[in-house]
Amino acid sequence: MARVPIDKSDNTSSEIIQQRLDFMESVAGKSFTHIRHHSISPEQTRGNIENFTGVCQIPLGIAGPLQVNGEHAQGDFLIPLATTEGTLVASYNRGIKVLNLCGGVDVAVVAESMQRAPVFAFGSARRARDFAAWVLTNMDTIRQVAESTTRIGKLIGIDPYLTNRYVYLRFNYTTGDAAGQNMVSKATFAACHWILDQIDDVEHFYLEANFATDKKASQVNMMRTRGRRVTAEITVPKDILLEHLRVTPQQIDTHHRASSTGAYMSGANNNGAHSANAIAAMFIATGQDAANVAESSAGILHVELTPTGDLHMSLTIPSLIVATYGGGTNLPTQRECLELMDCHGEGKVRKLAEIIGGVALAGELSLAAAISSEDWVSSHEAYGRNR
Amino acid sequence: MARVPIDKSDNTSSEIIQQRLDFMESVAGKSFTHIRHHSISPEQTRGNIENFTGVCQIPLGIAGPLQVNGEHAQGDFLIPLATTEGTLVASYNRGIKVLNLCGGVDVAVVAESMQRAPVFAFGSARRARDFAAWVLTNMDTIRQVAESTTRIGKLIGIDPYLTNRYVYLRFNYTTGDAAGQNMVSKATFAACHWILDQIDDVEHFYLEANFATDKKASQVNMMRTRGRRVTAEITVPKDILLEHLRVTPQQIDTHHRASSTGAYMSGANNNGAHSANAIAAMFIATGQDAANVAESSAGILHVELTPTGDLHMSLTIPSLIVATYGGGTNLPTQRECLELMDCHGEGKVRKLAEIIGGVALAGELSLAAAISSEDWVSSHEAYGRNR
Amino acid sequence: MARVPIDKSDNTSSEIIQQRLDFMESVAGKSFTHIRHHSISPEQTRGNIENFTGVCQIPLGIAGPLQVNGEHAQGDFLIPLATTEGTLVASYNRGIKVLNLCGGVDVAVVAESMQRAPVFAFGSARRARDFAAWVLTNMDTIRQVAESTTRIGKLIGIDPYLTNRYVYLRFNYTTGDAAGQNMVSKATFAACHWILDQIDDVEHFYLEANFATDKKASQVNMMRTRGRRVTAEITVPKDILLEHLRVTPQQIDTHHRASSTGAYMSGANNNGAHSANAIAAMFIATGQDAANVAESSAGILHVELTPTGDLHMSLTIPSLIVATYGGGTNLPTQRECLELMDCHGEGKVRKLAEIIGGVALAGELSLAAAISSEDWVSSHEAYGRNR
Amino acid sequence: MARVPIDKSDNTSSEIIQQRLDFMESVAGKSFTHIRHHSISPEQTRGNIENFTGVCQIPLGIAGPLQVNGEHAQGDFLIPLATTEGTLVASYNRGIKVLNLCGGVDVAVVAESMQRAPVFAFGSARRARDFAAWVLTNMDTIRQVAESTTRIGKLIGIDPYLTNRYVYLRFNYTTGDAAGQNMVSKATFAACHWILDQIDDVEHFYLEANFATDKKASQVNMMRTRGRRVTAEITVPKDILLEHLRVTPQQIDTHHRASSTGAYMSGANNNGAHSANAIAAMFIATGQDAANVAESSAGILHVELTPTGDLHMSLTIPSLIVATYGGGTNLPTQRECLELMDCHGEGKVRKLAEIIGGVALAGELSLAAAISSEDWVSSHEAYGRNR
Repeated sequence: MARVPIDKSDNTSSEIIQQRLDFMESVAGKSFTHIRHHSISPEQTRGNIENFTGVCQIPLGIAGPLQVNGEHAQGDFLIPLATTEGTLVASYNRGIKVLNLCGGVDVAVVAESMQRAPVFAFGSARRARDFAAWVLTNMDTIRQVAESTTRIGKLIGIDPYLTNRYVYLRFNYTTGDAAGQNMVSKATFAACHWILDQIDDVEHFYLEANFATDKKASQVNMMRTRGRRVTAEITVPKDILLEHLRVTPQQIDTHHRASSTGAYMSGANNNGAHSANAIAAMFIATGQDAANVAESSAGILHVELTPTGDLHMSLTIPSLIVATYGGGTNLPTQRECLELMDCHGEGKVRKLAEIIGGVALAGELSLAAAISSEDWVSSHEAYGRNR
Repeated sequence: MARVPIDKSDNTSSEIIQQRLDFMESVAGKSFTHIRHHSISPEQTRGNIENFTGVCQIPLGIAGPLQVNGEHAQGDFLIPLATTEGTLVASYNRGIKVLNLCGGVDVAVVAESMQRAPVFAFGSARRARDFAAWVLTNMDTIRQVAESTTRIGKLIGIDPYLTNRYVYLRFNYTTGDAAGQNMVSKATFAACHWILDQIDDVEHFYLEANFATDKKASQVNMMRTRGRRVTAEITVPKDILLEHLRVTPQQIDTHHRASSTGAYMSGANNNGAHSANAIAAMFIATGQDAANVAESSAGILHVELTPTGDLHMSLTIPSLIVATYGGGTNLPTQRECLELMDCHGEGKVRKLAEIIGGVALAGELSLAAAISSEDWVSSHEAYGRNR
Repeated sequence: MARVPIDKSDNTSSEIIQQRLDFMESVAGKSFTHIRHHSISPEQTRGNIENFTGVCQIPLGIAGPLQVNGEHAQGDFLIPLATTEGTLVASYNRGIKVLNLCGGVDVAVVAESMQRAPVFAFGSARRARDFAAWVLTNMDTIRQVAESTTRIGKLIGIDPYLTNRYVYLRFNYTTGDAAGQNMVSKATFAACHWILDQIDDVEHFYLEANFATDKKASQVNMMRTRGRRVTAEITVPKDILLEHLRVTPQQIDTHHRASSTGAYMSGANNNGAHSANAIAAMFIATGQDAANVAESSAGILHVELTPTGDLHMSLTIPSLIVATYGGGTNLPTQRECLELMDCHGEGKVRKLAEIIGGVALAGELSLAAAISSEDWVSSHEAYGRNR
Repeated sequence: MARVPIDKSDNTSSEIIQQRLDFMESVAGKSFTHIRHHSISPEQTRGNIENFTGVCQIPLGIAGPLQVNGEHAQGDFLIPLATTEGTLVASYNRGIKVLNLCGGVDVAVVAESMQRAPVFAFGSARRARDFAAWVLTNMDTIRQVAESTTRIGKLIGIDPYLTNRYVYLRFNYTTGDAAGQNMVSKATFAACHWILDQIDDVEHFYLEANFATDKKASQVNMMRTRGRRVTAEITVPKDILLEHLRVTPQQIDTHHRASSTGAYMSGANNNGAHSANAIAAMFIATGQDAANVAESSAGILHVELTPTGDLHMSLTIPSLIVATYGGGTNLPTQRECLELMDCHGEGKVRKLAEIIGGVALAGELSLAAAISSEDWVSSHEAYGRNR
């Protein structure tokens, strides 16, 4: 088969796009009328995609408003959810309603950090150890070199991990309102090249070797944060829970014990129910990198009964990768979704992180109640008709 | 703030949709012209979303064609990638070019299984153990009850996991060309109710307790498959690698050792580079559930040098959740993307799984080469201009 | 330095032993009077050790009697604990006392299985998959060949694990009252050689490749049992807990939540406190392989409050490796320790497993109470004087 | 059954010991002549055990001498191994012989740290986050308070881990030549009480909650060290390998790939073969806490071929818990075993750690060769006669 007519992959002239579409149609023997139906100006997509040919249209549902009592997000927010999964919006809405009845959800960003983790291989473990020590004593210069490449990124510190002949240096940065993967790559690359100029016995150097860990779930990210670590919390009075979710605090607690033990034994990266749903739907709606659902899907759900027998539930998302500028956030529909929450542009990322945290908790509450009270499948039946 | 005017959340009349949009615009104090620009007929989204208000437009780039030598996918395939991440399409295209030069990528679905894993709590560990044994001796009836709820799903078997007073029963099904989460929920629910009719001392029963493990990465899925287990393989002659990716087989192998050790120590669910990128972009393009990037992001990359010094690389994706009908696969742009690969409808899911596997391997090859030869950041610089 | 005078490493003549000791003393420049002080007949150690030179004397403390309500262990048992860690015996005794006050501890062996997990590498993933299927269709013959090598071992089944070009076959056996690692190695080796006679395109074969997983903690063993899976259970009335351990059920439950979450985040193989202590001390006392503390140290602790506000606690040890004959169980002191519990010889291994499970739970209760009520360090101070 | 006559559990008068033994014999209906045969003075065991009644005699075999090229261990060392597992000493000796032929094993302690990890629960995540920040700004005082309790321990730093309402503070100390678990408990307890005096809204405090993680394998220890992180390295010329272990470097490398992938998929805490064997046998011989085999069994084995086709192998033990004074190190036989290596008393712990690392690597080499060349079972057959 011939190659896609690309001229250059970042060429977004209407002529080239038309050629691509023609080629696709000739290959498929069908006409594609939908992907070419969009309101994006192709030039706008440069930097976001190569070989642009049109769009995928993802249904957008609106949930909320959700009352968020954050440090950055304060007030009622309409929640854009882009998904093709029936019952998702309804389930989140069900949880949101209860959170609102409780006075809204408390959320906080409790840590933030973006990483790049180069590895250096040496001739011996001893040499590797000494190199790691040398790095720490040269932090000031390393920081200066790294930060010279970026207006925004700040190097918080470096965690060295030693094994065999290797030193993995996990560089931790703050990256303002960007997700920051590219920013920290560039900064770390610069720092490493300064290091490599000083140290002449590095046998191998790679800018990444799975200690960051970008686009994958990992224990290190669960423990030590990647992106934003967000915690959302709610206390639901027994009566509200019973009336609106038809379940008692004790039932949710009892299920949670079984569910936490299940996650522990199965080696799952989340002992809650489905925070990936909220995260994926909001990521797509707001121009985040959907591949980061991999690490953002980790979660630690906590349930306890208060002394008065009410339900306290909180969710920590340890590695939520979000941005409010750069990446896909300027694309037209994505920008509108961000604007719906007043989360577009600089100075908004923690606000967005808080809102996502709150929504995710709404879903945990809703699904935990459904599972605990056994109506889970039946609710799927009612809504998910086309399965 | 007032609630979204919903009438009913699955109401897709143009009037209600207009009310929703008006409300959103009044809340945001902005007009939203883009999300309302789409070619989806709202009624078409019923079963896929509630509170439909419009769409998110995700840029679609085309890579390939990729030559796939699968058991189901055979020939050259154009690859639809929906993403907002610059360099992604280019990077995959770079890898695809090399795979094609090697005669195409070999891919196979090596296992398939979809789960629901209810938990039963008993008064004692002994009772739990005996219950697990009872279940296995009643497999015929349980299978019959489960399968009575579905035209397609077949119960392969049940893995019991015992701890404390709990029995987690991991029901494993084949689900035809659907992803099948709802199908297996319904089947398992029926089976459990039959079980609960026979057994009167179950203290607690929940249809799920994190042993499935839906929408989360887990060791159990990595070991025992969820969705499709797909392996893509390629042998790249040294000269091709050197000429087109400017790296030697040995360089890639040396990096892979460091990278595998990194993944092992950091507890990452993937020792490769970034298979989540291909998976997320193809999931969005083809109407898959993007939340399943959580478990689909797991990967096991294998690298070795052949006796003649060439590079052998293979990628196993142990829990790839895909469908070619149901869910979002009938939505207009999603259907077009599936049709581009002749993957829409029944009888196509293994074909799609194979193609995704092949694309993911292309990306592993491309990025491994880039990291090994140190030009990674610079390629980001060239394309990712708007960061 | 000269080599140890060994003649042959299994020579246990007094002359050779004397030469070894002389050599050791000349090397150290000290006389070693203690290691040569023992009541073992050197010939008795053949098959247990090479280059025998004497013994290590490990202090033996006695706890209990513990009332065990098992299926195999029924009655009161004195517990031999060989340890050098001050407070260990006292702490277990404290827990035992409370278990007895509650009418004894319920224990059951809920699963048993010993593994060897060879790996076969093929030319392609497809071929590997087909081989795995072939194995399952040839189970009868494979079982026959495997079982022909052993009087006792029975092949329960084979779990195949596929990745890349590899098939790991996890052979699961029952092994009677032996721990059985050697028995299953021999049986699996025979089965594999039969397989290798049938299949001529195996590229590599190794009898083990870390899927068993012998002498290491692993998720697969936690999920799927290695050795014996044992659960011990107790319900402690609130008043007894308060009077004897100075803590309320609620306090233990609250600590357990924090402690389980800690284990989940830190990636620990045990969410309890210290079951390795009981296991190591009883392993040494009874002639078990102390290296198996690696996998036997895994544990899943469950805590809940009963409707009447009492404490229910149970501990599952998913991979307890024990034997009552073979290995070190016939050595003089080890045999005496086994005889103290009437656990020496065939037909006793489940009994021993139950007793160990009960003792381990006693320690969990004791230490959980101590931590919950904050007197942990102070109790160490009182007993562990020589630190 | 009556309780053990204890008077007090730390009473080591011969009269009380005799009463205990009499009671044991009456319970068992047998006379126990071996456990009472020992050369330990009972008073010597105070602080090491309660309810002392005698000893377990563990066979002691001698391997080596092993040539260690450490920073602290330099020269040839005879290796005491206390075990009941046939072939263990022989297998280590086989590896040691090869290490010596290569000029000895290079070993280094690359990090050291002992932990106690209290948890503090607050009313909200926000408050927990602010507390963690407060702790770091008060490090000087916290260090001073912690270190005031110990002559030796130094607080290196505190890693805070945040989730939900919890702050886990992982206190990292150096502890001189002690293992130091009690030392750091005491120091951390003091620091926490100072903290609790300053902060009045702590809802719950526990000195430990599974973030240390004492006596259990964990990802956090594998990454961030517990006890000593030790790496042993060897390059074995191809000819030596072939002549003495009947295997090529390539064969070992090929097996290692399969074996590392196995460990990765099975979730094992060690991708090598059996370092727990060396560690357990040397721990028992030298008076270490055998329960620490749980965390000390973790290992990261690295294999590569040198440009000249020789074998490079290294083993990192990330959490080796050892001491050369305190605990069981002063007991008579244990002291002799330490003295055999000139490792008794202060100033020797790194030396001991290096020797253990070297021995463990010898075993990896020996068993890797045996598995790679398929003679594993047969060597068990020759030595392990009494199975």
